[in-house]
Amino acid sequence: MKDYFRNRKTIRKYSDKAVDMELIYQLLEDAMRAPTTGNMQLYSVVVTEDKELRAKLAPTHFNQPCSVNAPVLITFCADFNRFNKWCELRGAEPGYDNFQSFVTALLDATILTQQFNTIAELNGLACCYLGTTTYNADKIGDVLELPQNVIPVTTLAVGYPIEDENSAPVERLDAKHLIHKDKYTDYTDQDINDIYTEKESLAVNQAYVKENNKESLAAVFTDIRYTRANNEHFSKVLYNYIEKQGFAFPQRYGIDSDLY
Amino acid sequence: MKDYFRNRKTIRKYSDKAVDMELIYQLLEDAMRAPTTGNMQLYSVVVTEDKELRAKLAPTHFNQPCSVNAPVLITFCADFNRFNKWCELRGAEPGYDNFQSFVTALLDATILTQQFNTIAELNGLACCYLGTTTYNADKIGDVLELPQNVIPVTTLAVGYPIEDENSAPVERLDAKHLIHKDKYTDYTDQDINDIYTEKESLAVNQAYVKENNKESLAAVFTDIRYTRANNEHFSKVLYNYIEKQGFAFPQRYGIDSDLY
Repeated sequence: MKDYFRNRKTIRKYSDKAVDMELIYQLLEDAMRAPTTGNMQLYSVVVTEDKELRAKLAPTHFNQPCSVNAPVLITFCADFNRFNKWCELRGAEPGYDNFQSFVTALLDATILTQQFNTIAELNGLACCYLGTTTYNADKIGDVLELPQNVIPVTTLAVGYPIEDENSAPVERLDAKHLIHKDKYTDYTDQDINDIYTEKESLAVNQAYVKENNKESLAAVFTDIRYTRANNEHFSKVLYNYIEKQGFAFPQRYGIDSDLY
Repeated sequence: MKDYFRNRKTIRKYSDKAVDMELIYQLLEDAMRAPTTGNMQLYSVVVTEDKELRAKLAPTHFNQPCSVNAPVLITFCADFNRFNKWCELRGAEPGYDNFQSFVTALLDATILTQQFNTIAELNGLACCYLGTTTYNADKIGDVLELPQNVIPVTTLAVGYPIEDENSAPVERLDAKHLIHKDKYTDYTDQDINDIYTEKESLAVNQAYVKENNKESLAAVFTDIRYTRANNEHFSKVLYNYIEKQGFAFPQRYGIDSDLY
């Protein structure tokens, strides 16, 4: 148990073994015991096994191998649709068409995702997060026919693993630098060097810098993997989609700051 | 193991037993094996045991009993500060001062929180999420002295539980209604009635409606617990704080839609 948590790693290769969908549903039900805001359960889960639909989803995840090869894609959505419909049917007036409510549902959906990830891995499945979900939330919403007040937050590619016996868990930064006692202590340049030098010195990361023809590991992130141009573009796409789906940003209901 | 996940519940009462801080740090380190975007680990954790600081944090959580009584408050933050400082120190130009990057770090921090929640509960600790963190992120940031590019996302109140033997896990909606096969199937009025009738019929919820002098359980949520006025107010506060901390919304870098 302790070993699982301490040694877990993401496995991105899937065997041909079929996934029992009843098992997936059961594990999702168990995962729904995870905490949720005010017991509102502001999420929905779309379990996509259908080949044609997965073929439509894969490009929204930039055809990452996980998204192409996994036998099941599970899209976790922030969902106020069900809750709003309930309120309206009972004559109550929901006030959840705003940014804070979206963030609340986003947290609920993410907590559920990680709980499912843990339970699924403990049951021998391999899960891989597709962080591309917030980039192409609009396109994913179209494929999955998400109604108003529903926004995809993250996706797990799920299957049975083919484990590469030689693969060690990926490195992590020394935890003590990421934990602050009582309040936040900002990092000095020396701290930053202490934190990142080991990561940078790993053969795998040095090879990665060379492959990408960059001066530093940091530059692989800033110039290739997570660029300003992409971040700003996908900020706009996400922002517009959040509003389109019915969660308005404060410009809609009056903003009382000197920012505008 | 399966039993833990299937029967877990949030315990909100803490015994006097002191929490071993070394244990907390070890469990946090284990939790940091949870998935993170591109292995960037875009989070920081502030573990507040100091009494005076906890007394300053409690009002930011509206003095919820958990926030007042727990011996430790752990604030999980979306953090691009450390990553940006690393990039700059290496001569790389970070492009993470935008909404999409904030959401990425928010997901990383939330995944970490839930992983810690699970590990801590399995180690006999009681954890309670304080959803108030996104309401008063600005005030929490002040107390914890969070620098630019750091935003508190959620908080766990942590201690050893006093379990009320009689307390059953809180009810959940029937999972089958929250899981969609292949794509989303929208809810009919009949579906909504099927989903919520059992919840509404529970004695505890009927008493709750009566206590609050409302017509329906839904109205307790809309009129008392999560009101439009509060949601809109705290949307503005959060929106402004996100920008103040250095994550700009798309208005800053040009928005190409007909929404404005």
